[in-house]
Amino acid sequence: MVDFNTGREHYVYFNAIATRWIDNDVYGHVNNALYYTYFDTVCNAYLMEAGGLDIQSSPVVGFIVASSCQYLSPVKFPMVLDAGMRVNRIGNRSVEYGVAIFKQGERDASAFGTFTHVFVNRSTGKAVAIPETILSALQRVVKQP
Amino acid sequence: MVDFNTGREHYVYFNAIATRWIDNDVYGHVNNALYYTYFDTVCNAYLMEAGGLDIQSSPVVGFIVASSCQYLSPVKFPMVLDAGMRVNRIGNRSVEYGVAIFKQGERDASAFGTFTHVFVNRSTGKAVAIPETILSALQRVVKQP
Amino acid sequence: MVDFNTGREHYVYFNAIATRWIDNDVYGHVNNALYYTYFDTVCNAYLMEAGGLDIQSSPVVGFIVASSCQYLSPVKFPMVLDAGMRVNRIGNRSVEYGVAIFKQGERDASAFGTFTHVFVNRSTGKAVAIPETILSALQRVVKQP
Amino acid sequence: MVDFNTGREHYVYFNAIATRWIDNDVYGHVNNALYYTYFDTVCNAYLMEAGGLDIQSSPVVGFIVASSCQYLSPVKFPMVLDAGMRVNRIGNRSVEYGVAIFKQGERDASAFGTFTHVFVNRSTGKAVAIPETILSALQRVVKQP
Repeated sequence: MVDFNTGREHYVYFNAIATRWIDNDVYGHVNNALYYTYFDTVCNAYLMEAGGLDIQSSPVVGFIVASSCQYLSPVKFPMVLDAGMRVNRIGNRSVEYGVAIFKQGERDASAFGTFTHVFVNRSTGKAVAIPETILSALQRVVKQP
Repeated sequence: MVDFNTGREHYVYFNAIATRWIDNDVYGHVNNALYYTYFDTVCNAYLMEAGGLDIQSSPVVGFIVASSCQYLSPVKFPMVLDAGMRVNRIGNRSVEYGVAIFKQGERDASAFGTFTHVFVNRSTGKAVAIPETILSALQRVVKQP
Repeated sequence: MVDFNTGREHYVYFNAIATRWIDNDVYGHVNNALYYTYFDTVCNAYLMEAGGLDIQSSPVVGFIVASSCQYLSPVKFPMVLDAGMRVNRIGNRSVEYGVAIFKQGERDASAFGTFTHVFVNRSTGKAVAIPETILSALQRVVKQP
Repeated sequence: MVDFNTGREHYVYFNAIATRWIDNDVYGHVNNALYYTYFDTVCNAYLMEAGGLDIQSSPVVGFIVASSCQYLSPVKFPMVLDAGMRVNRIGNRSVEYGVAIFKQGERDASAFGTFTHVFVNRSTGKAVAIPETILSALQRVVKQP
């Protein structure tokens, strides 16, 4: 049985990430912090594509309040990765995504983690209810063990 | 009583981090992934200063295998932050750091998390025992609730 | 005689930049692209401090239209650098800064370059005249050979 | 007639660069420093693919000694770009690349510049002659007006 965190089939939406020369750190692998930039990319890409988020002008946007990652095997430049995403849990004002990084063609994740957005009023920074079009987009990609 | 995760007095070693223009993302705050680069900076600074780590030539180096962060209040450019570090737990081949980001002059963290190094042979990538000088440096900054 | 591009005394405003672990690339030195993030930091710091620029809300902001750098000697983490800035030339809608990176305590630059802002209306992206408070701040740091 | 700096047909080797969420800065466009990370990616990709460069173990590697960029029109996340590369000039120990960034499907560059590698002995940092396999790869992509 494939683990719910590491198996490619347990993620719903994917984004191809070509690594860049600068992603490698002094040890020759993609630096740990960069994985979170890949998570940000896939989650926001989904919100923009399926939920109508406009990162320049939407009055309600998602701020990250928690994140975590476990690194199973290193990745590096040059390489094309797939960032995978699903929704683990939806709250009133927040959503926890399940996220993972796969080498292209591989079924087991090189890294996986969680990423939590709280939706806030862009000008006040106060948490608000998840906007309806975003909520509906999130509900479509919920996946549970 | 001050929380063990958020209180400045529960961290042992500190590094001043001046934010940079590029650290702010499109929402005008330091991007969530950047916090991990601050954690990397303070933990490696301690290993280099107190444990004799040479990131260019040491045969044994620390690879990150797990990381997590909770974001309590936003920080931005321009601002000078203190990255705080302690050791939560030492294993045979790994160490979990407690890490936090403080605005200068503030007692409560803006963000806190964990950061886990496994020590590996730089050429083979295999996990090895923590080198003695590093181990002794880590033991000096263990702090528990 | 000290060269106008490399001599510390030919720059007017300075910002201390502590390098970060992630700034080192796979060759163990600060990556060439990072220098431009230091230039962005010192130039915007000056505009905010002396010219009243608010990067979140000012109706007129500076977009970079040209940049260049010559790298004379490598810098790395850990190290504290001074980013130096002056104004080379003021146009109607643009300004060219002279910029340089110094190791702390050194008189000769490790790198130097140029950085050109065009001032634009933030919502339309169209070039506009330099706002008066910014113009006056820029005029105070003009330096010519 | 298409300008030698901005016309897509004047570049020889291309690399697709998908922008990332974090590439956008507070003004909502890809930050000026990021373009240099794209240039690094396309030039090193070519050296690795055609010239046998191994960034982890080659005894001779390329250090950047000069770079420049002119920014003609903004790009942003989400967007897929083509980074284009050619060789402008080959010296004994150095090479100047012509580089440019195109939106996919567009003939005119959004930005263009130069990027200069000096080849050095990785351990001593001293400039050396361009290794033969790299030299031959570079000669194949020289393009002049």
